[in-house]
Amino acid sequence: MRGELIAIGTELLMGETVDTNSAYLAQRLPAMGVEVRFVNVVGDQIEDLVEIFERGLSRSDLIITTGGLGPTDDDLTREAIARVFGEKIETDPDLLHSLQDFFRNRGTVMPPSNAKQAALIPSSRVLSNSRGTAPGWWVEKNGRVIVALPGVPLEMEHMWVNEVTPLLRGVANSSVIMTRTFKTFGLSESAVGETVEGLFGDRNPYLGIYARPDGIQLRLIAKGATEREALGLLAPAEAQIIKALESNIWGVDDETLEDRVANMLSERGLTVAVMESCTGGLLSSSITDVPGSSAFFQGGVVSYTENSKIQNGVDPEIIKSHGVVSASVVESMAESVRTSFGSDLGVGITGVAGPDPVGEVAPGNFYIGIAWAGGVSSTHHWVPPNRSIVKRRAVVSALIDMCNYLKTRPVG
Amino acid sequence: MRGELIAIGTELLMGETVDTNSAYLAQRLPAMGVEVRFVNVVGDQIEDLVEIFERGLSRSDLIITTGGLGPTDDDLTREAIARVFGEKIETDPDLLHSLQDFFRNRGTVMPPSNAKQAALIPSSRVLSNSRGTAPGWWVEKNGRVIVALPGVPLEMEHMWVNEVTPLLRGVANSSVIMTRTFKTFGLSESAVGETVEGLFGDRNPYLGIYARPDGIQLRLIAKGATEREALGLLAPAEAQIIKALESNIWGVDDETLEDRVANMLSERGLTVAVMESCTGGLLSSSITDVPGSSAFFQGGVVSYTENSKIQNGVDPEIIKSHGVVSASVVESMAESVRTSFGSDLGVGITGVAGPDPVGEVAPGNFYIGIAWAGGVSSTHHWVPPNRSIVKRRAVVSALIDMCNYLKTRPVG
Repeated sequence: MRGELIAIGTELLMGETVDTNSAYLAQRLPAMGVEVRFVNVVGDQIEDLVEIFERGLSRSDLIITTGGLGPTDDDLTREAIARVFGEKIETDPDLLHSLQDFFRNRGTVMPPSNAKQAALIPSSRVLSNSRGTAPGWWVEKNGRVIVALPGVPLEMEHMWVNEVTPLLRGVANSSVIMTRTFKTFGLSESAVGETVEGLFGDRNPYLGIYARPDGIQLRLIAKGATEREALGLLAPAEAQIIKALESNIWGVDDETLEDRVANMLSERGLTVAVMESCTGGLLSSSITDVPGSSAFFQGGVVSYTENSKIQNGVDPEIIKSHGVVSASVVESMAESVRTSFGSDLGVGITGVAGPDPVGEVAPGNFYIGIAWAGGVSSTHHWVPPNRSIVKRRAVVSALIDMCNYLKTRPVG
Repeated sequence: MRGELIAIGTELLMGETVDTNSAYLAQRLPAMGVEVRFVNVVGDQIEDLVEIFERGLSRSDLIITTGGLGPTDDDLTREAIARVFGEKIETDPDLLHSLQDFFRNRGTVMPPSNAKQAALIPSSRVLSNSRGTAPGWWVEKNGRVIVALPGVPLEMEHMWVNEVTPLLRGVANSSVIMTRTFKTFGLSESAVGETVEGLFGDRNPYLGIYARPDGIQLRLIAKGATEREALGLLAPAEAQIIKALESNIWGVDDETLEDRVANMLSERGLTVAVMESCTGGLLSSSITDVPGSSAFFQGGVVSYTENSKIQNGVDPEIIKSHGVVSASVVESMAESVRTSFGSDLGVGITGVAGPDPVGEVAPGNFYIGIAWAGGVSSTHHWVPPNRSIVKRRAVVSALIDMCNYLKTRPVG
């Protein structure tokens, strides 16, 4: 089934908001048997909306829109769908009633403008929105389906999961696309490419190789008449990739490096504390992005000044003789924070985010240190001296070093 | 001049990568006199690309593409442009030479596949790429302009600034759009709307009001024959908005809350240190996103456990009698971190990011504390209990509370 997405809103066209809804849907549609070929972004103008819908209906079986379902005059998605199908919009008494209930339950009276959200056309049915006031539409006509979803990501995602996917399973049954992503580190894009080259054909499954901030990713895409058939095509290719790259694969599909570290720490019953300088708290923040991280994360120190490093246990003599951005200092940071928080592992980061150098050390240089009961080690890295790149890459490097160290520890 | 954007790449259609290039360009085109009416995302398939280009040429004066300029078989942007204009692609000897130089300067030999990037058609001219191997194209034909830029954001942005804007000024001179964004806090969207309602007409300048995580934003958009005329239309409306909302406006245009806090601290010669719990280091990380923050940021503690709060100076009796997520504890955190880092201000955050409650306190609740030489204060907040929302909103609240406090301190 051929699909396309339309993100609606002048704020998207002005670049004020980045359209993340389309990426969310695009990731999920292939597994439902929908091949997404076009994504459109259009403003709140009725002529432009009608043009996009007409174009979409001429080339796609399914159109999913996000946005333009609010109560104000510039919310025109319903109006545009009614026009392209030549149908008349009417207020649905039941829907109006449930909207009024929504406001009543929140202790207020529905503003008159919200009555617009109770509109339907004969070919549309309601997709209910338990998280907001904008109901969605499921419209089927002339062998085409239009699904209109709200623009607020939390509302849209909830409606997608609970309302759209059951209906879509009923119409999109021609073929299913299944994917598997492998995330690696320690290899270049060309090294990964050469390793897997010729392992299997290049059509189905299709293999894509992408460079990402957290390493090289391989994505397998298989298309079959059923989920079973698509998975059957994936399986042998997956096995070959795992065999060829096993020691470099750290995660599969949605898994993040933070998840991986969290799992490895939990499996080994280990705790961690961190002392970070140039990353300014971003490593702690990334680790605590994982729900349940309080079980293993003992805490952190952002030692942004020399003084605060000394106050938190780093020997001033080490700073004096090696410089504050050095392997010796980062190892001392890791050991000090491990001791002061009483954790199994200590992690340190020191470096130069820029734009100015620190002493003799140029922006882009950073060190990662890991301390444990039996010792300490460190690594040195250099990345392009852009402040946000240095911060992000230093955090990724620290997480990768943590994975590498944790691999050497027995599970359980 | 009517413009549209085309982001090219199957990884965008699969939702693997979010298209941020289009937002970058969409923000900058109106000031060049280009009204962006459509943004398209399309995969690496030649038929789909040709269809999108034909459609674009039928409705827009200017098309800007990003992506599809690499050396591999699935990089088809050049091919598609050649087809829609019915021109033949040929290798340009000068361009080939400069590509070979690019590789030679990096100590390697150009792989044969990169020769593809030295291609031109008769109507195209080169946009040079000092940051990568993919040159861009500027194509003018039949009163239409197509600009093809690389997909890597750093390369694209550099080419936009240095190569595209000078050429675009020569063709896009019909009208200029200027904008001004005001960022506020402390008011609801409807309160802002009512305050500015009827202050001026609703066409030119046009006023948009948007809810953002860091408060309500007002965006003025004015269109004039010249930059001077557009600015002349903006000025009186700006003055009225400032008059009506002055005490609630914290920033203009690209300014972030972090920038604002950094400026206010610097102007007052004050330093700060933070102790944060549920935000896990994100407040420290946000403060240190600002270049030069080492001048005022003394450091931070991520006190993720009760123990680490006590170890960092919070009285265990206060935790016992008030609970770890409370106004008393957050004030003690702010005072303790101020003392231990010897800073002028101390900031504390404690709360429940979720998904589980902490004691009796439900996810979504958090407290912000600010301590200074003369005292301490705190605020309580509740937001929807989604882990990443709680973290982000707590950081925004802390920055806003810091602004509010700093306003009471004299500058200099």
